[in-house]
Amino acid sequence: MTRVLILTEADLRKIVQLDIDAVDCVEQAFAALATKAVEMPPILRLDIAAHRGEVDVKTAYVPDLDSFAIKVSPGFFNNPSLGLPSTNGLMMLLSAHTGLVEALLLDNGYLTDVRTAAAGAVAARHLARPDARIAAILGAGMQARLQLHALTLVRPIEAVRIWARDRAKAEKLAGELTMELGFPVSAEVDAERACRDADIIVTTTPSNRPILDAAWLQPGQHVTAMGSDAEHKNEIDPAAISQAAPYVADSLKQTRRLGELHHAIAAGLVNESADFPELGAIVAGQTAGRRLREAITLCDLTGTGAQDTAIATLAYRRAVSAGAGQAIETTRASGDPS
Amino acid sequence: MTRVLILTEADLRKIVQLDIDAVDCVEQAFAALATKAVEMPPILRLDIAAHRGEVDVKTAYVPDLDSFAIKVSPGFFNNPSLGLPSTNGLMMLLSAHTGLVEALLLDNGYLTDVRTAAAGAVAARHLARPDARIAAILGAGMQARLQLHALTLVRPIEAVRIWARDRAKAEKLAGELTMELGFPVSAEVDAERACRDADIIVTTTPSNRPILDAAWLQPGQHVTAMGSDAEHKNEIDPAAISQAAPYVADSLKQTRRLGELHHAIAAGLVNESADFPELGAIVAGQTAGRRLREAITLCDLTGTGAQDTAIATLAYRRAVSAGAGQAIETTRASGDPS
Repeated sequence: MTRVLILTEADLRKIVQLDIDAVDCVEQAFAALATKAVEMPPILRLDIAAHRGEVDVKTAYVPDLDSFAIKVSPGFFNNPSLGLPSTNGLMMLLSAHTGLVEALLLDNGYLTDVRTAAAGAVAARHLARPDARIAAILGAGMQARLQLHALTLVRPIEAVRIWARDRAKAEKLAGELTMELGFPVSAEVDAERACRDADIIVTTTPSNRPILDAAWLQPGQHVTAMGSDAEHKNEIDPAAISQAAPYVADSLKQTRRLGELHHAIAAGLVNESADFPELGAIVAGQTAGRRLREAITLCDLTGTGAQDTAIATLAYRRAVSAGAGQAIETTRASGDPS
Repeated sequence: MTRVLILTEADLRKIVQLDIDAVDCVEQAFAALATKAVEMPPILRLDIAAHRGEVDVKTAYVPDLDSFAIKVSPGFFNNPSLGLPSTNGLMMLLSAHTGLVEALLLDNGYLTDVRTAAAGAVAARHLARPDARIAAILGAGMQARLQLHALTLVRPIEAVRIWARDRAKAEKLAGELTMELGFPVSAEVDAERACRDADIIVTTTPSNRPILDAAWLQPGQHVTAMGSDAEHKNEIDPAAISQAAPYVADSLKQTRRLGELHHAIAAGLVNESADFPELGAIVAGQTAGRRLREAITLCDLTGTGAQDTAIATLAYRRAVSAGAGQAIETTRASGDPS
């Protein structure tokens, strides 16, 4: 008898939160990328231009994990006019031993939100100064909120500035986060002012031209750029890539094609084959992260299938021990289809 | 409120069969490939060598269909020793307008079996002589059975020879098919003898070296090669590709890389950029299929995402009108994951 466990977003919200366990889980996925024979094929991408839609499919096999995830992430940009969110999706978890489907995680993108924010915490843990207190968040969407929560898990944040193109949205979010976090979160009208004297800057937008000027950066700052995950997206002035020491990729193969690095290469500021450390190598201690207190560090996050496999495996393990979700009988029939 | 319809293999077997409707549905998918702006990205492939596993993910957007499928096909070749089938899988159906998941088709590969056999019928309908009566099937697995059933839907088949490396398996299948079809199906010990005077030859094996010799082919025969869907697989003597008039691909982009054509190119018999008709162009009447009664025609099937989208859309439409399956509530929560 074969069963598939169906977990809805509501089930998953009860068992997985953006907490230090989620950060550690994602951190281990990065370490695995550096130390194990992870199989992470190129992202499958389907474009449906007629409906302003796109779908990414990511997967990764991480040795020693019993399961691997396949994640489907649609983005349909006419949805808001229909009263629907633009992004969405689900994950499948399959046995790494038999290929049998173990679970369907109908998370509507929730686990992606968590693992993406957790990666921001991993980057800050290994690249930001240990005493980082002031954060600047560019953008005022879901990830703006989550990246800030993630930072507070790993650094003693006590003041935050939020800048967004939509000023009202920044102010609303600042008000909410001040209540949630118990320290001052203010909205800034000017992006440069938001970044000034910040210890950590996180860019969280889908912008397709730079919102962070290289000239604004100050010694000792750490930047996490998490918004760009497609060729046309670009949040960071390419000159900032050359200034960074180090520039760190979640996956160099991906950031060369989809991340901020892509634009620095296109601008001729960085050689296409230039080598840079990956976050996993730093996590695994194979190379140093921040070497100098006054260095400007920059981490370019495009999102990896390894993170999906890690968070989906965590969710499934917890669901099984909590008895969560609904099992569907899927036993294979014998006989033929005619 | 958002719902996802869950359909199990048992549900799907009740509503979709290998019949003339399935053949027509798949035929329309081929026609769409030739006449519409179908988006069909390269197959995503994950290899898990440690467990002799591989996973293919296929998808295609077909204009005018309201939904598109994403199909996950795992093959894990240690499974038989665990008492499990090697192949497996599921399909997801998403709205082409919003990207929302409409249905999860937990078919364990059943719909793939149907659409693959249906493609064989489409090939025979457009390439085999209308009076084709004798079929030779090489292989004795699930597709051997289904390809024969499919042929009987489109041609007046009245005698069949089955050859397989495993003679006992061929004999068992021949016995079963004789009962099911009501005409003589015999097992042949010799592949050449099985093919002699056959009107249609279908190769259905995962072989990685030719099982069909070009010298065996006779004027007027039609060959469908459906076994090869990966670089290393090869059922047909490469010389047969040059003999065929026409050689027809389901997707030329795919057969150049994964099909029989791939081996003819590798052998230097066919130029890498040589142009050949696709099955869809023949279905759509853009080019002729069989021109001469005495021609040898050959159709190279690797399996396309367009077929998956077509059969999954048919299954979903029928499930909705039959009230089949189980709806799962997946409404999006508001609020953040911390």
